[in-house]
Amino acid sequence: MTETATTETISIETIFQTLQALRERRPLVHNITNYVAMSVSANVLLALGASPAMVHAVEEVEDFVGISDALVVNIGTLSPSWVAAMHRAVARATSLGKPFVLDPVGCGATPYRTQVSAALAALRPTIVRGNASEILSLSGAAGGALARTKGVDSAARSDDAVAAAGALARATGAIVAVTGATDYVTDGTRLVAIEAGDALMPLSTALGCSLSAVTAAFAAVAPPFEAAVAALAVFGAAGSEAAGRCRGPGHLPAEICDALHNMDADTLVRRSRIYPISPPWLAISGRPQIA
Amino acid sequence: MTETATTETISIETIFQTLQALRERRPLVHNITNYVAMSVSANVLLALGASPAMVHAVEEVEDFVGISDALVVNIGTLSPSWVAAMHRAVARATSLGKPFVLDPVGCGATPYRTQVSAALAALRPTIVRGNASEILSLSGAAGGALARTKGVDSAARSDDAVAAAGALARATGAIVAVTGATDYVTDGTRLVAIEAGDALMPLSTALGCSLSAVTAAFAAVAPPFEAAVAALAVFGAAGSEAAGRCRGPGHLPAEICDALHNMDADTLVRRSRIYPISPPWLAISGRPQIA
Amino acid sequence: MTETATTETISIETIFQTLQALRERRPLVHNITNYVAMSVSANVLLALGASPAMVHAVEEVEDFVGISDALVVNIGTLSPSWVAAMHRAVARATSLGKPFVLDPVGCGATPYRTQVSAALAALRPTIVRGNASEILSLSGAAGGALARTKGVDSAARSDDAVAAAGALARATGAIVAVTGATDYVTDGTRLVAIEAGDALMPLSTALGCSLSAVTAAFAAVAPPFEAAVAALAVFGAAGSEAAGRCRGPGHLPAEICDALHNMDADTLVRRSRIYPISPPWLAISGRPQIA
Repeated sequence: MTETATTETISIETIFQTLQALRERRPLVHNITNYVAMSVSANVLLALGASPAMVHAVEEVEDFVGISDALVVNIGTLSPSWVAAMHRAVARATSLGKPFVLDPVGCGATPYRTQVSAALAALRPTIVRGNASEILSLSGAAGGALARTKGVDSAARSDDAVAAAGALARATGAIVAVTGATDYVTDGTRLVAIEAGDALMPLSTALGCSLSAVTAAFAAVAPPFEAAVAALAVFGAAGSEAAGRCRGPGHLPAEICDALHNMDADTLVRRSRIYPISPPWLAISGRPQIA
Repeated sequence: MTETATTETISIETIFQTLQALRERRPLVHNITNYVAMSVSANVLLALGASPAMVHAVEEVEDFVGISDALVVNIGTLSPSWVAAMHRAVARATSLGKPFVLDPVGCGATPYRTQVSAALAALRPTIVRGNASEILSLSGAAGGALARTKGVDSAARSDDAVAAAGALARATGAIVAVTGATDYVTDGTRLVAIEAGDALMPLSTALGCSLSAVTAAFAAVAPPFEAAVAALAVFGAAGSEAAGRCRGPGHLPAEICDALHNMDADTLVRRSRIYPISPPWLAISGRPQIA
Repeated sequence: MTETATTETISIETIFQTLQALRERRPLVHNITNYVAMSVSANVLLALGASPAMVHAVEEVEDFVGISDALVVNIGTLSPSWVAAMHRAVARATSLGKPFVLDPVGCGATPYRTQVSAALAALRPTIVRGNASEILSLSGAAGGALARTKGVDSAARSDDAVAAAGALARATGAIVAVTGATDYVTDGTRLVAIEAGDALMPLSTALGCSLSAVTAAFAAVAPPFEAAVAALAVFGAAGSEAAGRCRGPGHLPAEICDALHNMDADTLVRRSRIYPISPPWLAISGRPQIA
C-alpha cells in the first residue's frame, strides 16, 4: 500500500488529549474475556487509567452493563454458557447505546469459534479488533471462504488483511482494527495505518486481548474510529517503550503497564506514527484514491 | 477518628512471631477464588510461606476442606456452580472448625453479587475482608440500604466504612477488615487501624484478593482478630517495600512476592503502623470512648 | 541411587539440537489446563519457541486437536465439563497419533482427583509429568495404596517416587517424568536423572504445569523419552539461570521466559546435567544393574 501525501487524519496531540480525558473520566470497562487474558487485561486497563471489571455470569451481566461505560467481548476461551452471557451483555449494551468491542480470538481455528464470532459480529459491534488471520476468517464468514488460523497466533500478515478488514467494516458497520507489524484501522471507507509496537510483543500472551480492552476504554471517551486509532497508538507506543527495557518477553507485560502509567506526549510522539493509506477497495472500484 | 493514647493492642513483634509461626507451619490454604486473582494469590501465598490450592469442583471441595488449614471464599468472578461449591465448602469448614475468610468482591455492583455475598456472610465467616464500597454494601444488605459500587474498585474511602464494618461484625460475628488508604479491623467492639501499603497498590489487580488469601493463611495460625491485623500489617509492609522499587504498577505483584519472601522484623517495623481507634459506635451510643 | 559409569544416554548437544528444531517448527500446543497455569504456560511456550492455545469447550476440542501438534491435559482446576472435554480431546489425539502429555495435578489430594487422573492415565498418555506425591498416588491408583498429597505441592521427595514412576510407566506404556530436587525420566526400563533448576522454583506457582506444556512441545518434535529429558533439561536450565537474577520468587516466571528465549548451548551445558541411573526395579528383580 502507498502512503499518501496528505496530512495525518488524527494527530498524536489529539490522541494524547484523548488519553488525558480517559485518565480523568476513568471509564469502567466491562470485560467478558478469556481466562488467559483476564489478569493482564485488568492490569493494563488500570495502568492506562481505566477501571476494569470481569463479569460473565448470565445472572448479572445485564445489570453490570448498566453501570459500566464500555463492553469488551473476547471469545478466547469460550464455552456455551459464556457465549450466552456475551449475547445478553451485547444486547443490553446496544439498547443503552454503550460501545461494544469484539475480539474474535482464534476465529477460523475451529467451526465453533468461527460461528460464534460471526454471530457476535452480526450484533453490530462498535469496533472489531483482531489479527490478520482472525479478520480474514471473520470477514470470510460474513460472506466468503474461510482462512485457516493457526491457534491464536496470526499466520497471516496484517497487510494481507486490509481488504478483508474493509469488507468486514462495510458488512457489520463496525470500525475494524487489524493488528500486526503495522496496524490498520478502517471504517470501510477511510484507512489509517499505525506504526508502533515491537517484535517482542507477539511473544507475550494476551497482549492483543489487552489491546482490545484498551480499545473499549478509549471507546468510552471518543468516537469509534478515533478510539481505535488512539488505542493502537498508545498501546503500541507503550509496547515499544517497554521492549526497550527488556532482554526477552518475560517482563514485557509489566513494562507495558509501567509505560502506560507513565505515558506522556513526548513518548507518544517518539514511539508511534499514524498516517492515512489509500484503501485497496478504492483502487479496485476504479475510483480515485483518497485518504 | 481520633487516635487514642493507649498503647498498641497488637505489637509488631507479636505479628512477626506470628509470621514466623506461619512460615514454620506452612498452612494449606484452600482458595475458591476468582479467575483474575488465582495466579497472583497463589504466588503471594507461596512467597508468604503458605501452601496454596485452588479447588472449586462440587465433587471435591468438601474433601479438600478436610485436608486444608483454612478456606478463603472470593466471589470475584462468580457463577451459580461456583456459588454452590462455596456453600458446600463453607459448611464443611464450619463443621470442622476451620477458619473461613469471605471476600465479597464487587458486593453492591449487581443485585446477584449482593445477594450471594449476603448469603455467604450469613454463614458466619471467621473474617470478612473488603474495600469500603463492599463493606458498606454488605453491611447494608444485612439490614439497611445498599451503597452503589463502581466495579470492584472502591469508590468510597475506608474511613467512611468503619461504622458499617462494626455493624457487619456485630451482625455476623465475623472480624471485619476494611482496606483502603488506612486499613481497619474490628470485631464490632474493638477497632484497630493499620497504616501500611502504597498508593500504587490499587493500580495492580487482585492485590486485595491476595490479601484475603493472606488473611486466611494467618487465620490458620492465630486467632481471627490477630490474624486479620497481622495480614494487613505484613501485606501492607510488603506493598510499601515493593512500591519503593517500582516506577509504576507493572512489577508490583512480583516485588510484593519478593518483599514477603524476604520480610524481616525491621522491615515490618519500618513499613507498618498499628494503633487502636475510638470506635464511632461508642460515641454514637453515648458510652465512654475506649480502645 | 547410584550414578553409573556409563556415558550419557542423551547428550546436551542432542537436546540443544532438539530445541533448535522446536524453534524452527514452532509446534502448536493444545492446552487443556488449569486457570492458574494458563497465562504462565502460554508465556513459557511462546518464550520456548512454541505456539500455545488454550481450548477446552466440548464443542471444539476435537477440531482443535486436528490442527495442533501436541496435547497437554492438566487437571489442576478440574470440573466435570472439563473432564469430558479432556476425554474427547485425548481420544482424538490418540486416533490421530498426536502426542498427549498428562499432568495429574494434586492426584491423591481428593478421591475425585485421583479417579479422574487414573481414568486419564488409562488412556495411554505419551508422557506423564508430576511431582513425587502425584506420581506415587497415580501409580498406586493403578494397582496399590494411595499416598496422601498436601495440596498441589509435593510432600514427598522425587527420589522416593522413582520406583512408583517405573511401575506407572510399565502399567500405562507412558514415559513418566517425576520432578523435584532431582528430576527422573523412565520408560519402566531405562532411568535417567536430570539435575537442573533451583530451590526457588517451587515457590512460584504453575511452573510444574508450564513444564508439562514444555514437555508436550518437545513431544511434537522428538520421541517421547528424548522429549521428556529435553524438556526437563531445558526448563531446569532456564530456571537455574533465572534464579540467579532473582532475590525472591516474584520475578522468576518472567526471568524463566527470558532465559528460555535466550537459551543457548553454553547455558544449557552449564546449567543442566543428565546421567543414567541404575533402576531400583532391576535390583529388586535380582537382575544385573544396567543403565
